[in-house]
Amino acid sequence: MKKESFKVTPWEVSGTIDYNKLVEQFGTQKISEKLLKRIEKHTKEIHFMLKRRVFFSHRDFEIILDEYEKGNKFFLYTGRGPSSKVHLGHLIPWILCKWLQDKFDVNVYFQLTDDEKFLVKKDLSLEDTKKLAYENALDFIALGFKSDKTKILINTKNANKLYPIALQVAKKLTFSTAKAVFGFTNETNVGIIFYTSMQSAPCFLEDRPCLIPLGIDQDAHFRITRDIAPKLKKYKPSLIHNIMFPPLQGIGGKMSASDESTAIYTTDSSKEVEQKIKKYAFSGGRDTIEEHRKKGGNPDIDVSFQYLRMIFEPDDIKLEKIYNDYKSGKLLTSELKQITIEKINVFLKEHQKKREEAKKQLGKFLL
Amino acid sequence: MKKESFKVTPWEVSGTIDYNKLVEQFGTQKISEKLLKRIEKHTKEIHFMLKRRVFFSHRDFEIILDEYEKGNKFFLYTGRGPSSKVHLGHLIPWILCKWLQDKFDVNVYFQLTDDEKFLVKKDLSLEDTKKLAYENALDFIALGFKSDKTKILINTKNANKLYPIALQVAKKLTFSTAKAVFGFTNETNVGIIFYTSMQSAPCFLEDRPCLIPLGIDQDAHFRITRDIAPKLKKYKPSLIHNIMFPPLQGIGGKMSASDESTAIYTTDSSKEVEQKIKKYAFSGGRDTIEEHRKKGGNPDIDVSFQYLRMIFEPDDIKLEKIYNDYKSGKLLTSELKQITIEKINVFLKEHQKKREEAKKQLGKFLL
Repeated sequence: MKKESFKVTPWEVSGTIDYNKLVEQFGTQKISEKLLKRIEKHTKEIHFMLKRRVFFSHRDFEIILDEYEKGNKFFLYTGRGPSSKVHLGHLIPWILCKWLQDKFDVNVYFQLTDDEKFLVKKDLSLEDTKKLAYENALDFIALGFKSDKTKILINTKNANKLYPIALQVAKKLTFSTAKAVFGFTNETNVGIIFYTSMQSAPCFLEDRPCLIPLGIDQDAHFRITRDIAPKLKKYKPSLIHNIMFPPLQGIGGKMSASDESTAIYTTDSSKEVEQKIKKYAFSGGRDTIEEHRKKGGNPDIDVSFQYLRMIFEPDDIKLEKIYNDYKSGKLLTSELKQITIEKINVFLKEHQKKREEAKKQLGKFLL
Repeated sequence: MKKESFKVTPWEVSGTIDYNKLVEQFGTQKISEKLLKRIEKHTKEIHFMLKRRVFFSHRDFEIILDEYEKGNKFFLYTGRGPSSKVHLGHLIPWILCKWLQDKFDVNVYFQLTDDEKFLVKKDLSLEDTKKLAYENALDFIALGFKSDKTKILINTKNANKLYPIALQVAKKLTFSTAKAVFGFTNETNVGIIFYTSMQSAPCFLEDRPCLIPLGIDQDAHFRITRDIAPKLKKYKPSLIHNIMFPPLQGIGGKMSASDESTAIYTTDSSKEVEQKIKKYAFSGGRDTIEEHRKKGGNPDIDVSFQYLRMIFEPDDIKLEKIYNDYKSGKLLTSELKQITIEKINVFLKEHQKKREEAKKQLGKFLL
């Protein structure tokens, strides 16, 4: 049998991911039209990230709805490993999280895993990752979460709260299971081996069902949590997975915040965004304008188009027109890039303003 | 080669321990007359537990004195795994710790490892071990520590302080090293694997040398800490080890708090002490009074005598007389037991009074 040509783990994403295969491999469920219809009954509309299957997979979303329909509210939990500035891809689960909070009027916990990033990144000190955690929190707040229903957890700062819960998980998790799930070796440090328990902890902050919007690469942590939850007589967390946000260089792997040339940061200037898209954004266009006009481009592999599809063009009709025009050759790569640059910059101008304002609000959000 | 007939690890002590072999095995140093003389220069007297080699071994005590003589004060750190009530054996390192605090006028940190005991004891909940931690703290305070120079740490309560330091240790500790030191298997839970980092953490609470009075069974944790300290550019902790306090049944292993019939608790009534010593305390006496009078007893294996030697008869002259009288047959087992019962009960009456008073002082001691 052919070796899988892609890899998706919490600490490595590489190759061109076959998301259908991934659903099979991980044993998750695809998001169906039926599920979307059921969600829509409560939300009145469907977020474009769901409609377009930017969120493509889930675990037990139905149970969240079953309980909700019985009057048992859930809470939301998402997070971020603060190893760098925030890039556009990080926003995806947070944007859906915000939408879900608004539609269902529920609590949100946002975990910043400064411990994890310190443990896995050779060159980062705990001061570095903690500082980044506070910086990253601003991007989260900037998305408009309700301060009375949202708490930001920083693992080292909130260890009093999280460590005792993590211990409950850790007691039920053998090295052998953790090793099988994460591929640990004898050289793995003992912090990393324990760490997954800290990522599980927020699932049990409230005694009600928990829904986690997250990148599919983080699924492994919660496979463990879901195995252990019944042993603790707690609800298994439900998950809803987004696909990886492509790096500028093309739709293999995921955007990496540690390589400046693959990522657009939320703090980039309009000029930087323009330069990065123009210089690096992988194009589905043809080699020459003539050829492009004649044969058309390929929006499915075009990074600029994917950015529009995944975040920056919520309007389905406009997006379809761009898709068709690019495919037919009517829209040139330079024009598509220009649309994308403008969309990103409009978003970032507003985001950066709110991010500044968030500095004053931070205190209200910290647990 | 013959298999070792004893075992000394943080989680198992069994067999009749050969302390000379242990010093060799662990690579520690015996406490020499020369070292005691050097200590005496500062303390003016030598605690009987040092003189009698109840504390028999150390690691780098000289460095503590080198630094002290240069004007660089150390701090003390000791602790307790709260899996049960406190028994007499637990008091040994705390008593020396108190003496060292008085003589050197230094800070003391006392760690209650409620996390550890939860992780290793199948039947204990975190509520159980935390409750025991608060109970055990009273025994520590009852010994008379200075509240302005003493802090009690409860791992889950003080995780905000300890977890970030533990992470620094954990990042430098591979599974393979932890496994070699503690004998972990694939079935060990990930909490235990990480836990040693939490026990290391207090060594780095102050940026000065740290001295740890502790049972030799806890040495393994600090072998790891001492390996890692230079990598963190911190002082290696120095250690001073006591021998195991024998269970009532005889001088193999250590007194275990989880078996009621092997241990005398600090909260036992005079009646209970009397019954336990009379019923269970292993005797070095002869089968009949006649034989005892004629051939004499063996104080070296007599548990009552060992209790006097290790804790309850500080007066060397009195102790020697008891030793000689028992050895010669002048002192009968019942008489020796009576002396021990009285000594323990005098101590416990005072201790229990102070332990009650400690309930009001607890707040001052908690970090």
